[in-house]
Amino acid sequence: MIEPDVSAAPRLVALDWGTSSLRAFLLGDGARVLAQRQADCGILRLPAPGGREGFERAFADVAGGWLAQWPRLPVVAGGMVGSAQGWRETPYVRCPADVGALASQATRVAAAPNVELWIAPGVLFDPGDAPPDVMRGEEIQIAGALVKQPAWNTRACFVLPGTHSKWAWVESGRLLRFSTYMTGEIYAIARQHSILGRLMPQADPSPSLDATRDAAFDAALDAARASRPGELTHQLFAVRTLGLTDRLPREALADYLSGLLIGHELVSGLAQSANARTAGAPIVLIGEPALCRRYARALQRFGVVPAAQLDNTAPLGLWAFAQAADLLTAA
Amino acid sequence: MIEPDVSAAPRLVALDWGTSSLRAFLLGDGARVLAQRQADCGILRLPAPGGREGFERAFADVAGGWLAQWPRLPVVAGGMVGSAQGWRETPYVRCPADVGALASQATRVAAAPNVELWIAPGVLFDPGDAPPDVMRGEEIQIAGALVKQPAWNTRACFVLPGTHSKWAWVESGRLLRFSTYMTGEIYAIARQHSILGRLMPQADPSPSLDATRDAAFDAALDAARASRPGELTHQLFAVRTLGLTDRLPREALADYLSGLLIGHELVSGLAQSANARTAGAPIVLIGEPALCRRYARALQRFGVVPAAQLDNTAPLGLWAFAQAADLLTAA
Repeated sequence: MIEPDVSAAPRLVALDWGTSSLRAFLLGDGARVLAQRQADCGILRLPAPGGREGFERAFADVAGGWLAQWPRLPVVAGGMVGSAQGWRETPYVRCPADVGALASQATRVAAAPNVELWIAPGVLFDPGDAPPDVMRGEEIQIAGALVKQPAWNTRACFVLPGTHSKWAWVESGRLLRFSTYMTGEIYAIARQHSILGRLMPQADPSPSLDATRDAAFDAALDAARASRPGELTHQLFAVRTLGLTDRLPREALADYLSGLLIGHELVSGLAQSANARTAGAPIVLIGEPALCRRYARALQRFGVVPAAQLDNTAPLGLWAFAQAADLLTAA
Repeated sequence: MIEPDVSAAPRLVALDWGTSSLRAFLLGDGARVLAQRQADCGILRLPAPGGREGFERAFADVAGGWLAQWPRLPVVAGGMVGSAQGWRETPYVRCPADVGALASQATRVAAAPNVELWIAPGVLFDPGDAPPDVMRGEEIQIAGALVKQPAWNTRACFVLPGTHSKWAWVESGRLLRFSTYMTGEIYAIARQHSILGRLMPQADPSPSLDATRDAAFDAALDAARASRPGELTHQLFAVRTLGLTDRLPREALADYLSGLLIGHELVSGLAQSANARTAGAPIVLIGEPALCRRYARALQRFGVVPAAQLDNTAPLGLWAFAQAADLLTAA
């Protein structure tokens, strides 16, 4: 916890509440982070007894102290806390959507005596000719990025790598469409539960192997780029055969797996980005810095230089959401 | 166990020894199955204490009785028993390969006093411009299919669905090349360990849902066929969104997942099969009947009618292997 900077007046309590963790921010004017707290209290990891009480307890734990000190602060949240398994289900808004649409369709829940929590909805994209897609939390990150760099409102492609990576296209200030890729989750389960993990060493590899591991990652990106339709589950088996035949050191097999999956995501995401309406849109990475660096390396291998690489933009996005919901009246 | 048909003279003990199970066949002239036994003693499920003793014990358990009665019978085995984790590592032979190559590079191990077990090698395909591929066991199934229908020696495409599906192309009696697809394993781990399984009911669906489930399988095949490069991990997420938005009944989500993965396998396998040397080769399914029926339905959706659908051809393949190894001298 960063101790509150009492020289600035707090204006908002903002919660980024996902599946596995809960991050709380005390924000001052201009969305300046005055203090922050984090707890392993994602919606699937609530303190006993779970349910409403679990949410209340987790909320009191991260934000109770701030609200005791500044009882009139507005409180907002985004992420899985608004899902069917969350505190209060907040139905998806549909693309095209902007932060105003999020604010107008927010739900409210009594989080503590005299404290109302505003929950931002997720977003649904329904292309009509293909299955729908959904996000919860990334729309807030994107709203934050748009505050950070207003020029991206005109046109941008946001890439949020992770368990379920999102590629999202913004035009004229609205989120037009997006696609989810299960890159991170397939990587994790293939490594932990499939035959592909068997040849991988458990220990962290030595830093002296970094060049070898980078080469394996790059080779897999090239294989993904050259792949023919339908080939991914065939290419994945190479993680085993390259190990079995000693063509890749075992310490580099996880990098090859990662390169294949990220590479396939890029093949599809970049092809979508090149379509008529979004061609030439700057590509902006948002997320955990090490993972974003991996994606930036992959994009560059595909001949694309990302316009920016941003760490967590949720505080700024939640600020924009609160502003759109008219919660930030002058102090 | 089928009791031996004592009216026919046994000629060979043949073992199909895989990762999870061990199937033993007592064969008479013309590879006629006189008796068979099965044990859950795959190479990763050996009776204690494992290692050589585990193999010996499993062997004695399934074949000891037969060999006590007919002590001079030759004994052969194919499958993972020849892998690095098997009883005796039997290095891969390289494509192009036929049953003569398997026989000439077999290894032998003392399986019991005065009993020598001949182990067939697996096959390695090294395309040079892509990672190598491997099989162990399927080459025996294919050898068996070629005995069953000698016309396929000229040209055929064998499809062996399963955990690691194989597509294998035979020309002029030799296995030219093959590709593995991790279809069955990705299906299993996505269902058991990923978010995609969460919405799927645990209980077996009612038979009254069969038409709905078939429709979901077919819709996923169509989606796979229409997919753009790199799109699989995006399409997989639809298993969740179609459930979340109630566009597919939850009982049909596993069928949609299966259709996507089998569909992608078919897109790639059929494209390979259409290449210059193998275009028009008959497609022959080998394997577990219910799974082969699922693949036959999928192939037909893609406009391809399989030439045949065969159940386990390992006994016939092991017979051909023993014959090529010159173990079947006249009685």
